[in-house]
Amino acid sequence: MKLIQSRDNAFFKALKRLAESGRERRKTGKTLLDGVHLVEAYEAAFGPVETLIVAESALAGGEVARFVEGRDAVVLADALMRELGLVDTPSGLLAVAAMPNSIAAVDLEKEAILLDGVQDPGNVGTLLRTAAAAGIKQALLAPGCAAAWSPKVLRAGQGAHFALAIHEDVDLAGFMAAYRGTTAVTCLDGSTSLYEADWHGPLAWVFGAEGQGVSPALIAAARLRIRIPMPGAVESLNVAAAAAVCLFEAVRRKQA
Amino acid sequence: MKLIQSRDNAFFKALKRLAESGRERRKTGKTLLDGVHLVEAYEAAFGPVETLIVAESALAGGEVARFVEGRDAVVLADALMRELGLVDTPSGLLAVAAMPNSIAAVDLEKEAILLDGVQDPGNVGTLLRTAAAAGIKQALLAPGCAAAWSPKVLRAGQGAHFALAIHEDVDLAGFMAAYRGTTAVTCLDGSTSLYEADWHGPLAWVFGAEGQGVSPALIAAARLRIRIPMPGAVESLNVAAAAAVCLFEAVRRKQA
Repeated sequence: MKLIQSRDNAFFKALKRLAESGRERRKTGKTLLDGVHLVEAYEAAFGPVETLIVAESALAGGEVARFVEGRDAVVLADALMRELGLVDTPSGLLAVAAMPNSIAAVDLEKEAILLDGVQDPGNVGTLLRTAAAAGIKQALLAPGCAAAWSPKVLRAGQGAHFALAIHEDVDLAGFMAAYRGTTAVTCLDGSTSLYEADWHGPLAWVFGAEGQGVSPALIAAARLRIRIPMPGAVESLNVAAAAAVCLFEAVRRKQA
Repeated sequence: MKLIQSRDNAFFKALKRLAESGRERRKTGKTLLDGVHLVEAYEAAFGPVETLIVAESALAGGEVARFVEGRDAVVLADALMRELGLVDTPSGLLAVAAMPNSIAAVDLEKEAILLDGVQDPGNVGTLLRTAAAAGIKQALLAPGCAAAWSPKVLRAGQGAHFALAIHEDVDLAGFMAAYRGTTAVTCLDGSTSLYEADWHGPLAWVFGAEGQGVSPALIAAARLRIRIPMPGAVESLNVAAAAAVCLFEAVRRKQA
């Protein structure tokens, strides 16, 4: 295995560009995956990653060392791994991997999660993960959301990306107008309680930015305007928590 | 207003210690609040904060400028505000505030949320926020959780801290043994579906670390071992998302 210790190394510089620049990721069609679970999920879906990169200290033993045993990997000095600054708690394993091309067309009849202005990468990744766990198979992101295939969103998604058709830069108003199921949005002054709302068939749920919420035009366009009843003194939920409540209420009803 | 531009300034150094050191926060009994919403929530609960600190650029206009108008505040050069490194997206407003003394005793009859080994500050804050929104009034944290009154947990909590009795370094096994309601834990191989589980009266929910989950001893001690049904290809949820699903299923049943 090759050990890289200098930040002037050409491969390290290329890694740093991939870590920091969405433009670089789009140009090369590649992204970075952090952690054994994510790399395994990618490889199960799409086959081998392009390059494995392991932090020097992670070779001493543990999950990462076991994972790279017998495989070709580039070893990075720990200081350089930290310098990539990808996630708050790097796992010690990275992979360069081709971003899968989304060949699926947007489906106007299937369930969907729609994200409007969700900028925080952790929230976008958690929303994708929750949607995938709830059995939803497509995600549509408006312009202004965090880039779905950035390393931080991938890390928070924990493999959800490989179970979803993800469409970015989507005109959500256009999709909602054409959608054949029921469009739903949560808002604090929503008229209908989640637990009393009436729906049949597939839903497209719109979730919005922390603070601002879903944009007024999309709220107006939604068929259902839903309020999550909050009996506590605090009347607000993180967007990913609100989505978990809504998406699993739909799961509960399907199972009932 | 006084403008601080030097990192050698004594007040800035004290701020940096508060931002970085849990020991310093315990020693002084003070913490840092980030953002207008959090400061307002604190002041509504406990009265005025000790010192307001505003980033130089935030004085130009907007929410922060309106909030500090007519109040005494220390102005910090933007570079120094960033150097505090408190949260990923600083709001431009900070406050030094006394940490409230928890005078409430642990209540063995009321609903509770129990956190076991949840280290990520964002997850701890979101869990507290979700619990407060669901009407829960006490939170018990085992040793090893992120410090509840750290600036990052406060920021993610968005005011939940002021609606909860928060107990840290709690022996959760001891609490569970003495609890007079029903103790519940989520685990992937839980025997009972959340939607089929049967309970009456108050619940104490245990949520565990990402990855590892709740420790085996606490799983064994819980009266209900609950599985969240996940129809999707991805069979995992972020701990804060899982908690939102459980806590609001309890809200739904109370309202039904």
